[in-house]
Amino acid sequence: MNSSYPEPLEELMSGLRQLPGIGRRAAERLALALWEWDREELRHLGTLIAALPEKVGRCPECAGLTESGELCHVCRDEKRDNTTLCVVESMSQMLAVEAGGHYRGRYLVLGGKISPLDGEDGSGLNLELLLHRVQNGEIKEVILALSSDVEGRATAVYIAELLQKFPVRISRPASGLPAGANLSYADGATIAAAFAGRTALDGKQ
Amino acid sequence: MNSSYPEPLEELMSGLRQLPGIGRRAAERLALALWEWDREELRHLGTLIAALPEKVGRCPECAGLTESGELCHVCRDEKRDNTTLCVVESMSQMLAVEAGGHYRGRYLVLGGKISPLDGEDGSGLNLELLLHRVQNGEIKEVILALSSDVEGRATAVYIAELLQKFPVRISRPASGLPAGANLSYADGATIAAAFAGRTALDGKQ
Repeated sequence: MNSSYPEPLEELMSGLRQLPGIGRRAAERLALALWEWDREELRHLGTLIAALPEKVGRCPECAGLTESGELCHVCRDEKRDNTTLCVVESMSQMLAVEAGGHYRGRYLVLGGKISPLDGEDGSGLNLELLLHRVQNGEIKEVILALSSDVEGRATAVYIAELLQKFPVRISRPASGLPAGANLSYADGATIAAAFAGRTALDGKQ
Repeated sequence: MNSSYPEPLEELMSGLRQLPGIGRRAAERLALALWEWDREELRHLGTLIAALPEKVGRCPECAGLTESGELCHVCRDEKRDNTTLCVVESMSQMLAVEAGGHYRGRYLVLGGKISPLDGEDGSGLNLELLLHRVQNGEIKEVILALSSDVEGRATAVYIAELLQKFPVRISRPASGLPAGANLSYADGATIAAAFAGRTALDGKQ
């Protein structure tokens, strides 16, 4: 084609367009911005990208991302509680729980949730690893910290059934009002959940 | 830091965040998407990025982007009209004019516009190249196809003065209603420009 950028730039743009949320215009903007970078910066970024598969892998314990061949920093930490396992959908949710600063147990990254509409029937999830850990560890409680949408709840139910034969407690984080929330602006479903799960202020149950 | 992705991923994210329009969340999404790519695709993209400075350079005639060491496809084309020079701000504007399919002359890519607020006083623009081409070529007309915002108009006025001593006609594309436009939805400035620049239907001026 004649009305186009030089071939290497066009190739770069079509590469960038494979990324989520990057359309034709955004790819053009990114490629042109990259072209203006220093030679050294470009080489650095290019090397980082090319080396991703060698440098970053899945943790054999929790299936989270980690530097290849190593346990992730949570699984490596000997001071964590081995009797609690928190099941999350993705690494970014695991980081969110970590940022909360309260949870001191172990993790398992499921790698998604059961979603028949997207063709995910559970075979792509790390359910075997989950079973393996519940079977062979000292786990006493499994916290299913999955999304509270339809797929997340279906996945939680499925996992709860899967784990029924093991002597573990299965729980999920409380539903309710977010910290600092004003009742006026909360949606009905959240308020209903918060009332249904209300806790006693005076310590009586 | 403990609550973070593995170091190589974090490094990639902070690299991606240098790009325009890419914030923390978008960089995370892009880096995680990249991690799922095939080894071969990643190597290809990484090589493309690292090789940009060697592969893509500025055309010595028009300052547009081209494969390094070559004239761009327009400057290389011997069938184009050497007597007309179209001055545009950027390569992407040059491609837009080319896509119009009407213009058959030469180009000069200015590399921006005069914009004192952004610290661009004209010294970063390819004005010397413009003077050189007007001085040494067979150019009879210079079309200033710059943005119709304040900076674009200021740049056009500045260039027009710069070229005053040369025997060239200086023009700019017509302002008016876009093709297929409905008067009801046109803004006032566009309508005013379209009426001021109205053309005779019967061929009389």
